[in-house]
Amino acid sequence: MTSIDDAKAVLAAQPFSVLIGAEITEYGPDGSTLEIPLRPDLLQQFGFAHGGVLSYAADNALTFAAGAALGPSIVTTGFTIDYLRPAQGELLRATAKAVNATRRQALCRCEIYVVDSAGESKLCAAAQGSARLIELN
Amino acid sequence: MTSIDDAKAVLAAQPFSVLIGAEITEYGPDGSTLEIPLRPDLLQQFGFAHGGVLSYAADNALTFAAGAALGPSIVTTGFTIDYLRPAQGELLRATAKAVNATRRQALCRCEIYVVDSAGESKLCAAAQGSARLIELN
Amino acid sequence: MTSIDDAKAVLAAQPFSVLIGAEITEYGPDGSTLEIPLRPDLLQQFGFAHGGVLSYAADNALTFAAGAALGPSIVTTGFTIDYLRPAQGELLRATAKAVNATRRQALCRCEIYVVDSAGESKLCAAAQGSARLIELN
Amino acid sequence: MTSIDDAKAVLAAQPFSVLIGAEITEYGPDGSTLEIPLRPDLLQQFGFAHGGVLSYAADNALTFAAGAALGPSIVTTGFTIDYLRPAQGELLRATAKAVNATRRQALCRCEIYVVDSAGESKLCAAAQGSARLIELN
Repeated sequence: MTSIDDAKAVLAAQPFSVLIGAEITEYGPDGSTLEIPLRPDLLQQFGFAHGGVLSYAADNALTFAAGAALGPSIVTTGFTIDYLRPAQGELLRATAKAVNATRRQALCRCEIYVVDSAGESKLCAAAQGSARLIELN
Repeated sequence: MTSIDDAKAVLAAQPFSVLIGAEITEYGPDGSTLEIPLRPDLLQQFGFAHGGVLSYAADNALTFAAGAALGPSIVTTGFTIDYLRPAQGELLRATAKAVNATRRQALCRCEIYVVDSAGESKLCAAAQGSARLIELN
Repeated sequence: MTSIDDAKAVLAAQPFSVLIGAEITEYGPDGSTLEIPLRPDLLQQFGFAHGGVLSYAADNALTFAAGAALGPSIVTTGFTIDYLRPAQGELLRATAKAVNATRRQALCRCEIYVVDSAGESKLCAAAQGSARLIELN
Repeated sequence: MTSIDDAKAVLAAQPFSVLIGAEITEYGPDGSTLEIPLRPDLLQQFGFAHGGVLSYAADNALTFAAGAALGPSIVTTGFTIDYLRPAQGELLRATAKAVNATRRQALCRCEIYVVDSAGESKLCAAAQGSARLIELN
C-alpha cells in the first residue's frame, strides 16, 4: 500500500466501507484522512451521527495510518475513542497519523471532525490505537 | 427505558442500527445483548467482519447496558476495544453489563462473540466504556 | 512463573513494587491479586490514594494475570483504566484475570477495590489491558 | 491553578508525587511537563522504568494539563496508555496537553519520553485521558 490509489482500492474492497460511503482523501506518511458524508441512515435517534459511525471512522482511519507506516499486511489490535460532542453536520472527516512506528507495530492517533454546510469543522471525537504486522503462527 | 420493548423501540429509531441490521435480544439489569447477522456488506476485504462493525456493536451494547442502569437520557463518553481474533461466522453477539453505576454514570464491559453455523461461539473482541446522564449546561 | 512463590519472587525483584509495598496474595489460572496497604505517602493532596498508585496496581495486576497465562517472558502493551470513586481506606486490592489468551498474547481485566478498616470493600477502578510474549527482532 | 508556582505547590502537596520524585517543569495553556529522575527504586526487575511509574507520569501529566484548562477542582476520569519501548535512561519526561476542553471537561493527550545521559530522548509511551469538574451530588 504505497499510494493513495492503492489505499482507495483497499477501501473499495471493504464492503462495509462501501455501505458507509467512506472515501479516502489523504494517504501518506503525514497521515490518512477518511471522509463520510452524513446520510440519514448513519444517524441515531436524535439526528446525530451514530457513535458506531464515529467508531468505524476511528477504526479505519487508524488502520490506514498504520498501513502507511507498516504496509498492507496488518491487523488492528484495538483502540480507545473519546466522544467530545454530538456530531451534526454534512460530513465526518477523520484524520489519523502514526505517532510511533517500528517495523512491526504502529501507534496512531485520530481526530474526528464534523463539518457543517458552511465548511466549518468541529472536533467531535479523538482516538488512539495500534496495529501490527500479521504474524504467522 | 424500562423494558426490552422500550429498548427495541430505541434501536428501531436508530437509522444506523437498522442499516447494520442489529437486533436486541436481552435487556435488563443483568445486561444487554445485541445480535448482528453477518451479511456480506458488513465485511472487510478478507471476508471477516469489519472492525467498524465490531466497534459499532461495542458502542451500542455498552450504551444499552448503561441505559438499563441510568435510564434513557444518557450519552456514551467513550470506550476501549481490543480485537482478539478475526470474526468469521453467521452472527455477532455482543453482550454488555454495567460493572459499576452511580446515579450519574455507569461503567460497562462488553464481550463480542462470533457465532458459526453450528452455533459455536468464539470471543473476538472485548470492550470497556462509560456513559453518563446528559447534563444541561 | 508457575507458582505463587515464583510470582512473589518476581514482585520482590521489582524495586518499584517494593517501594510501593505491594504484595501478591493470589496467583494462578483463576487470576492474580495484589494488595497495597495505603501508607500516607501513597496518597494525593486530598487524602485519597493517588491515581498513580491505582494505575500501578492495574498495570502490575494485569501483567501478573498475563504472566500466569503466558509465562514470564512478556511485555505489557498497554491498558485502559477508569476511575470510579476516590479511594480512601486501609488497603487497595487489585484482582486481575485473563479473559482471552493465545500462545502469544493475553487480554486481561482488573478490578481495584479499596478496603476499609471494617474489611468492607468498594470498587474504585476498573482496567482492561494486554500483554504479549517478548519477540526477538 | 493559574501559575506554575501554584502547580508546583499542588505537586508538593501530593505525598505520592514526592515519593516518586516528580517535578513540574512546564505548566500552562500549551501543556504541562513532569520530569522524573530514574532512581533505582523506580525500576522493574530488568532495569527499566516500571510500567507503574510511566502510568503515574501519564495520570499526573494528564491531570495537570486538564487543570490548566479547567481549574483545580477536577477529577481524572480515566486514561489509556500504550507502552512503546522499554524505558532506560536518566529521566522520564511526560508532556501533556488538552486537545479539547469545555467548561466541564477536558480531553488530554500525553507523550512520555525517556532521556539518556547525552540528553537524547525517545518516546516510550503515549496516553489519552479525561478529567472533569468535580460535581456535588
